[in-house]
This record gives sequence, C-alpha cells and structure tokens, in this order.
Amino acid sequence: MSKRRIFLEDIPLEEARAKLQAALESARKATPTPGEPVPLVEALGRVTAEPVRARLSSPHFHCAAMDGYAVSAAATVSARETQALSLRLGVDAFPVNTGDPLPEETNAVIMIENVNQGDESTILIYAAVAPWQHVRLMGEDMVSTETVLQINHQLRPVDLGALAGCGHQSVTARRQPRVQIIPTGSELVAAHERPKRGQLIEYNSLILSSQIREAGGEASATDIVGDDECELRRALTDGVASAPDLILILSGSSAGSHDFTAQAIDALGELLVHGIAVRPGHPVIIGMVSGVPVIGVPGYPVSAALTGELFIVPLIRQWLGMAPPEASNIEAVSTQKIASPLGDDDFVRVALAKIDGRLQATPLQRGAGVITSLVEADGLAHIPRFHEGVDRGGTLKVSLYQPLRLIEQTLLIMGSHDPMLDLLATHFRARFAGQRIVSVNVGSLGGLIALRRGEAHLAGCHLFHPESATYNVPYLQRYGPNEPVELVTFAHREQGLILPAGNPKGITSVADLRGARYINRQRGAGTRLLFDHLLAQHEITADEIAGYEHEEYTHLAVAAAVADGIGDCGMGLRGAAEALGLDFIGLVWERFDLAIPQRRLETDAVQALLEVLRGDAFKRELGAQSGYRSDETGQIVSK
Amino acid sequence: MSKRRIFLEDIPLEEARAKLQAALESARKATPTPGEPVPLVEALGRVTAEPVRARLSSPHFHCAAMDGYAVSAAATVSARETQALSLRLGVDAFPVNTGDPLPEETNAVIMIENVNQGDESTILIYAAVAPWQHVRLMGEDMVSTETVLQINHQLRPVDLGALAGCGHQSVTARRQPRVQIIPTGSELVAAHERPKRGQLIEYNSLILSSQIREAGGEASATDIVGDDECELRRALTDGVASAPDLILILSGSSAGSHDFTAQAIDALGELLVHGIAVRPGHPVIIGMVSGVPVIGVPGYPVSAALTGELFIVPLIRQWLGMAPPEASNIEAVSTQKIASPLGDDDFVRVALAKIDGRLQATPLQRGAGVITSLVEADGLAHIPRFHEGVDRGGTLKVSLYQPLRLIEQTLLIMGSHDPMLDLLATHFRARFAGQRIVSVNVGSLGGLIALRRGEAHLAGCHLFHPESATYNVPYLQRYGPNEPVELVTFAHREQGLILPAGNPKGITSVADLRGARYINRQRGAGTRLLFDHLLAQHEITADEIAGYEHEEYTHLAVAAAVADGIGDCGMGLRGAAEALGLDFIGLVWERFDLAIPQRRLETDAVQALLEVLRGDAFKRELGAQSGYRSDETGQIVSK
Repeated sequence: MSKRRIFLEDIPLEEARAKLQAALESARKATPTPGEPVPLVEALGRVTAEPVRARLSSPHFHCAAMDGYAVSAAATVSARETQALSLRLGVDAFPVNTGDPLPEETNAVIMIENVNQGDESTILIYAAVAPWQHVRLMGEDMVSTETVLQINHQLRPVDLGALAGCGHQSVTARRQPRVQIIPTGSELVAAHERPKRGQLIEYNSLILSSQIREAGGEASATDIVGDDECELRRALTDGVASAPDLILILSGSSAGSHDFTAQAIDALGELLVHGIAVRPGHPVIIGMVSGVPVIGVPGYPVSAALTGELFIVPLIRQWLGMAPPEASNIEAVSTQKIASPLGDDDFVRVALAKIDGRLQATPLQRGAGVITSLVEADGLAHIPRFHEGVDRGGTLKVSLYQPLRLIEQTLLIMGSHDPMLDLLATHFRARFAGQRIVSVNVGSLGGLIALRRGEAHLAGCHLFHPESATYNVPYLQRYGPNEPVELVTFAHREQGLILPAGNPKGITSVADLRGARYINRQRGAGTRLLFDHLLAQHEITADEIAGYEHEEYTHLAVAAAVADGIGDCGMGLRGAAEALGLDFIGLVWERFDLAIPQRRLETDAVQALLEVLRGDAFKRELGAQSGYRSDETGQIVSK
Repeated sequence: MSKRRIFLEDIPLEEARAKLQAALESARKATPTPGEPVPLVEALGRVTAEPVRARLSSPHFHCAAMDGYAVSAAATVSARETQALSLRLGVDAFPVNTGDPLPEETNAVIMIENVNQGDESTILIYAAVAPWQHVRLMGEDMVSTETVLQINHQLRPVDLGALAGCGHQSVTARRQPRVQIIPTGSELVAAHERPKRGQLIEYNSLILSSQIREAGGEASATDIVGDDECELRRALTDGVASAPDLILILSGSSAGSHDFTAQAIDALGELLVHGIAVRPGHPVIIGMVSGVPVIGVPGYPVSAALTGELFIVPLIRQWLGMAPPEASNIEAVSTQKIASPLGDDDFVRVALAKIDGRLQATPLQRGAGVITSLVEADGLAHIPRFHEGVDRGGTLKVSLYQPLRLIEQTLLIMGSHDPMLDLLATHFRARFAGQRIVSVNVGSLGGLIALRRGEAHLAGCHLFHPESATYNVPYLQRYGPNEPVELVTFAHREQGLILPAGNPKGITSVADLRGARYINRQRGAGTRLLFDHLLAQHEITADEIAGYEHEEYTHLAVAAAVADGIGDCGMGLRGAAEALGLDFIGLVWERFDLAIPQRRLETDAVQALLEVLRGDAFKRELGAQSGYRSDETGQIVSK
C-alpha cells in the first residue's frame, strides 16, 4: 500500500481568496491583462484596456437633420403665414435628405411638410426659420478627442457602432486570460471515447473551459494525465513553460492514494491552500508555481463547476478589469428543512417556483457527483458559515441560474414520477416559449401532501385503493388539500415485474418473489403501494421479500438496479424495462391522474397545460409509447 | 425635382408586430429553425432542437463515492467499537479511490478516516457497514434513455458537461438564423474608409450584426448600395436568392427623395408596414419578398439600434424557440419633466443613479442621431402610447442596460463640464472594479441646484464671484443645499479665447469681440458667467456681441463650432482649443471645485473618490495636461 500524505485541512472561503490575492500580488499577477488591438468586427464582448477618444467628430460636417430644403435663415425673414415667400430651387433653396451636408451659404433646413410647391422651379414657405434649425451641427454626437468609452468597459453592439462612427477600425482590448487545463485520472477517458467498465468520461474540462470562455477567457486542455506523480509534474512543468495566466489541475485534489496534485505543487512551487470549507467542493487546492497560479479542482463535477463559479470565473473577470459577475439574488421560502455543517459555506442547488404569490425553493439532490442536479437547478442557495441551516418555511438567499421571469412562468408538478411527464414538458415548451413545466419526484402521496401545503401547482398520482377498487379519489380526500380539486387523467400505463434479460430465475408472478432479491420503491410511491397490495393478495409478508428495504426513487432507477444485478426483480413501468433491454411481465394497467385545485383551472398556465395535454399531437405520441394508453388523457375524472 | 412618393403612415407597435407574425405564419416562417449536429465543444450558447436523452448511464458501473476500502457488507457484521474486526487487504478489503469501480464481491466502502492500519496486510474496522454505503450506484446521476435536457434550452457549461457525461459528443441544436444586411446610402462609406466632407461612416450594420450575433443568429452585410432604386432592387433580389431567414435594408426607409426601400419591397413583394408609432425609430418598414421577411431599418443610429431591440432580436429568439430577452425592469423617479407625443410608444434613454436611497432617472439627449446617448444610457424608459409623459418627480418604468448593482455603485457628479472629469473617472474605474463615476453636464449653477434637489451626489462648479473675488463659496451659499457642504478643489484651469487657427481676425482680447461672431455657452454655465464678467470689465453689453445667443454645452462643442467656422471666437479651456488645433489666448486661471455634502464625506464611494483625487498618479497626470494645475487638487477649501 502506498503511503498516503494527507495535507487536506479546510480553511474558510474568504481566507482562501485572500491567500490567492496575496500570492497574485506578490507575483505581480493581480492586475488586469494588457491591451491588444482588436478589429471592431471581432470586438463584441471584449473589454477596453484604456479609455477610447473620438478620432473624428461625428457628424464631421453640418448636415440636414430632416428631409426638406436647405436655406439661408437670413433669406427667410420676410415669410409669414399670410404671405408666402417664394424661394428659387438651386439658388435660394436646395432639396436635402437627412444626413446630406448643407450646401454652401445655407445654415438651416425647412421640413418638407412645411413647404408647398410653387411653379416648377420654386417652393413656397410660410414662416421665417432660425439659423441652424433642423441642422445636425458638426460634432453633435462626438467631438474629436472626446472620451467616448471608459476603461474596463465590456463592448456592446452600440459601443462598437459609436467607435466606428468616430473613426476607429479597431479597439485596444484586454488580452483574454489564457487558462491551461490539465485533466488527471487513470480511470478517465476523453469525451469522444467510449468508456469501458471502470472508466469514466472526463467532462469537467468541458464545463470549466466553457465557464472560462463565457467569462471572457481562453482555455485549452491537455490530454488526460494518468495517476502518476512524475507524469503530473511533467505536465505541470510543461504547462508553466507555456506561460498561461492560470493552470487548473482537475481531480487528484483530495487525499486519496492517487491524489498527487498537492504534492506536485508543493514540490515545484508553493502550496498555499489545500482544502476550503465550502460544500460541495472542499478539496480545492491553490498554489503558485514559477509565478503562475495553479488551482487544483475537485473531481466531482458539481464541486468542479462550483469551484469554477467561486474562484475561476471571478479571477478571469479580475484580469479583465471587471467585478465578479453578479447573479440576480432573490429570497425564497424553503419547502424542506436543510441541515448545514456549521463550519462550511454551504451551497445548495434548488428548484424554484412561484406558488400562490410566494417564491419557493426545493433543495435538489446534494451528491456532488450528480451533475444533473446542477443542470436542473434554478438557483444556488448559500447557507453561510456559522449557520446551521434553515427550517422548512425558513428564508433562503438564492442566486439565480434562470431568469426570474421563467421561474415565475413555471408550472410545478410534484408527485409520482412518470417519464412521459418529460414528453408533456417537451410539447409544452415547444408550444409556449418562455414557459415550462417542471416535475419533481416525491412519490404519489408526497405530491398530494405538497399540494395541500401549497408547495406545488399540481400533483401527479396513481394510487390504487383496493377497498373501493378505484384510483386516487379516496387518497385525494384523505391527503389532498382542503379545497375543491379536479383529477385530470394523464395516462393509463402498464405496471409489472422488471426482470433481468432472459429472466434467469424464471419469475412469472409476485408469488415467485419469495427468496428473490427485490428492488423496492420509496415509501409513499404509488408503485410501492401497488406492490404491497399485490403481496397481500398473494398472502406474502414484507419480511419474506429480500430487499424490500432497498428503495429506489424512479422506475428507471429500479430498472438500472435490475440491469446491474443488484436485484433479481423490481416493479415498474414496461417502458423502463424496455429502455434498458430487460424482461417485463405486465400485471396491471393503472390510471395516472393530475390533481389540480379548481381555483387554478382557469389560470393561463393550467389552461396552456390542458391545451397541450388534450391536443392530438401529444395524445398520439403518448399512445404510441410501449405500455401507455391515451384514450382518456385530458378527461376530468368524475368522483 | 423628383416626384416623392410618401407611403409613410405610422401604425401602433403591437399592430406592426401582429402583421409581421401573420405574414410569417402564412409563409410558414413563424416556427423555430430545424436542428443540426453541433460538437459539444462548439455548442456553448446554442439551443437544443429536441429533448436530449442519456445514451449511457452515469456512472455506468457501481463505484466508490469516497476514498477508502471496498468490502462486502456481510463480512463486516461482527465489527464493534469495542471489538475491532481485522480485514485482509486484497482478500476482504480493497483500497479504492473515489470513482474507482467496486471490486467483484464487494458492495460497500469504508471511509479511510474510519480505518486503522493493522499489520502490513490488514486493516482494522470498528463498525459494521450497510450494503451500498458510500457507493455511487450505476445510474445515480443519469440512467440511459432518461431525458437530460429539454427542447429549446440554451446550453450552459454544466449542460455540456452533463451531455458529455451521458455519452454524447454532439448535440442537435437549432440552426442559427441567417440575416442578410443591405446598407444603403450614397453618402455612406464603410467603417474602414476615411470619410470625405459630405460622407458619413456606415456603422449601423456593425450595430445590427452584433445584436444579431449576441441573440444567437448569424449576420453578413453586403457592400453599401447607392441611392438608386434599380441597384437596391438588384441587391434585394440577390439577397432573397441566398435564402436567408431575414433581410435588413438599412436607411432609405423614410420618405425622402432618396428613400427607395418601400418602393423596392412593394415592387418585388408585399409591403406590410411603413411607419410605426415608436419614438425614436418611426420610419420602420416591414415586408415579405418571395417568402423572406424584409425589415427596412431607419438610418439614424439610435433608431436603428432600437429597431434591432424591438423587432429583430425578438425575431431571432423566436426562430431559436426562445422568448424575447427579458431585461431587468425597475422603477425610477424622473429628475425632469418629459413630454411625450400621445400617439407614440416613446423610448427615452436615461442615466440612472441611486441617491439617498432613491433610484433617479435623468433623460439623456433625445436626438436619434446621437449614438453616444445610447452608449451612455443606463436604461431605456418606456412611455406607452396614450401617455402624455411624466412630470418631474414622476415614476418611469426603465429596462436596464447596466446591472442594477453597478447603478447602485455609481457616484453621480452633476454640474459644470470638465474633460478631466473623464480622466478622474478612468482612474477611479481602473482602481475600483464594479464602481464608477458618472458626470452629467448641466452647468455650474445647475449642479448646485441638482445637489439641493437631491439629484446628484456631488456637484462640479467654477463660479467666479466678482464682488468677493472668490470662487464658488457665495454661489454655494445661495444656490446650494440647505446643509453643510464642503468644497474640494478638483483643479485650476486656464480659460481664454478659442480662435480659428492662425487667428485670421486678429482678436487679442475681449475688447476685440465687438462685431465678431461669438459662440456662447448655455445659461448657468460658469464659463458664461466668466464671459459676462469680462464683458462688464470692458464695458461691453451683450447686444454688441453677435452670436451671444448661440449656446453650446461643452468646451469641445464651442471649439468645434469655431473650428467649423460657425463663429469667429468662443470662450473655453486651453485643452479644448489645442485638441482641435485652434489658437488660444489665455485670460484667467480659475478654480474648479467639487461640492460634497458633509454627510456624504464618509461614505465608501466618496472616500474612494477622494483617495483617487488625492493620489499621486491622478494628480501627476492632471498636472501634466496643458492648461491645468493640480497643486491644490484634493484640498478642502476653507470658507
């Protein structure tokens, strides 16, 4: 066993930032990058490295500000409303269009609307005009030498126009900071390769290089470096030699036996920080090697992306002379209790929706390996160091990943998971730009409870009630909100046993499950209730089912667990089994309904949803899916 | 005189938008563009044309979620805190790092922190572990076939990571809408050419193509087309033949004798709209030619840029399946009365600042030819159709061009104009990222009044008081705010007569101005008061000065008017004369002070300003300017 050197010791976020700044300052790397000439046509989004002055005045001659006739004001003094003055075309009056230079000896423009035609060669005017009326004087917009743009200004379309208008063809913009990314890890393969068992796709370099580009920097990545300290040192030495502004070493920042980043920096330069008290993301490394800052980025993708947001993007912006990006910040009510370690700055990904006028935040899965939790997050709640977390109903400060307008236009469905809710969301989103449906999986019962608590706009459920042999209605009465609610059928769908391909254990019904390893769903899931009902029918107790306590949260997760041999059987949708090439024995066609409070039925968002749900396009596509029927889709259930 | 066909008739904005949509629908051009495969490394900011499902599960095998030892949970049941269990390395326990696949027959990971070394080949554990503890199960993040991204989703860094992580190398993204831009106007030259007298630089194509690129489209521009209807028709026909999504014809959209856009569209296709009741920007044209939408964009740059914001960017976004961009909207108090024509949607560029906790909007110059007014604008106030405008103190709805944070960090100086305030702003901005100084020119007296009204943080003034032979103090007492105010010296500067190069009229003092054409400054300007004082000294009355009523607003504007022969002489700063290569006869060294209410002296922003003002770097650069002295810069004036 190789000796493990554990440097890791978390320090507070602000202390880590201060150490980095101090090191940058002593290496004279804290100031913005110098300027370089950039043609205007390529300068959108670049940042000025110096104030820009007008080279030419604009306009650079007196010109007509209106379509009409240029005249000498002095020649018009005798014109009266009651006594038209005749001006000779080409002698006293000259037709001009907006932007035309004033002819010699003229100093005013009469608008075309205020003129009548005299004979062929004259016009008639009815009022004297003041000198310089309807004339754009030279320099009206910009006078040569005037400051047009300030230093450290990010160039927008109108800025480019103004620069071109005052005689510039290029602009001195800050050089884009260059970042060299070194991905490490013997278990990793590049994104264009097909991973074998034991190999993972390296995509953190794609996330980080995209963040860097978005912030205005340039990024390039080396090939993946294996878990070998010599190889890493060589890559780091090569990286430093190419004189980038920053080097990132991806993974290897923790204290595992293959984590060499800290040692390599320590050997070649100075290790400033190993471990920052932020969650997720704590094993961040900061060092300096030959005057180049080096950041060791944790390997978990959520940690890597947040390290990008917290450290790397602000650094790129600093080198561009700009303040860190300011996300919009809002306050939202937490729908759950969130525990947070006292010593850490804790960043919690949340889904947001506005329900009954109240912005609500629901924490998403917290595992740092779950990149989809960041993809799905509408914002990031920050629970500062020395705070224990928030209670359900407490206030969270959230920096937004999505525009507030979109969040306010979000229809939130909580409850049971059905993959076809994604299909509904697709049809909805394709039809209504700037609006969306989001479904959060908390199980059928959880959905009804969320509806009662005012935490969802609607709930999805498929709860079988054996006593009445009906779906959903009795549960809605017992667990649903204390107000009139309609049930609208979403789909009928086929539930059954999900089995390994070829069904090696020869399972044909629930009766065969004694002794088999079963994969269950979580408490409150409609599928679990259905399974319990089927067990009761077969007079089997939960104790007799090995794995009854193994809980998965979605149909696909059950199927995946079966596919990977964790269990011999699970219960779920035909579609989930077929998606992963598994066997399936159908047992039940069940009804999946959407519970919608009556007072929401007439809202624009719910009307839009019903329009999509009842539309031919959606019903046709839903009905064509294996294990689904859409003949009652969109119908209101009579209770 | 050529016959002028005037189509122009303004219709309301919403009606124009509806006509465009109806025409797009009947041409089947209202729906989003189709998808095309885009490699992930080039896909940042692109928009999905279909939902994206996982191709591989992630992780696609069970792997360690922690650094430690992989074990079989069943083999650990006898471990107790008081009774260590010894596990044989390589037999019962296998060292694993985060991400490593679980070795065969293991189903849990024990964290390295919870293990002690036994002898060389064993470890000791002190607690049993549950199956799947610290294991990332296959598909924990994404299960193959699961929907990872929705349709019409603009790709962010984390989205690209997720796509790579579930086996994608490319994504089906909407084709970028293609826009063909045809700039027209015989008076125009391309931005890379040097304009002669009568020629203007064509830069609207740069503004519009940049807006289009920023919105996610592609734009290309033809050479400039002269004012010739045949030539324009040919360019339009060629443009249609290249099958773009949209054609823009720049300028020629009004009703002047050289405006052929409407005729050309009418001849080759269908003219839908000519004239929209928006200000600025009303001569917008909309038509369809052979199924391609054509927009005629007004020639004034502010009108052109607003047409881009109001019509073109939303259209690009529609073709990308997205809602129009949502600017942040705020409410601000107007510092001036704004009159607005009843029939128009009126868009007013405003400067914004937060003063005494109140967001205040000051309208900027309203000429549609003044692109700098759009560059300087912090936002755009919308005064809807059927509203007459707002009174001073009334509320404006403003969509922001700058982040609210920057606006809140803006220190607003109103009052007299001095070009070196730009130098101060440069030093300030270079030192303090995310903060800025903005100076608005309202003249010295105007600044003191603005300070009294609470419309500025500080005021700049250089008001000579002949009776007391002092600067500023008596005026501050009379016009300034009713609270203690400090005067801090900004600079001493040289005022004098600005004369054409070579001084053809041989003017040597104010006494020579009788009979010369003078260029004056606006009422309330310190320079005008100084001139009045000098006239009185020479016993000259205003009546004797031709052009006394000709008002310019800045030193450079006075110099520009002299340079262009509008006048024979003006009064202003040495620097302004020298910038334009004019003669200058110095008359007075005057003191320019900043008036700062005492209660603001200790604010961070004013402290930052004083730090810059008193710093060596700024004082040295200021003092090196021709016509400036900085020896008292930053000193508090004793009253």
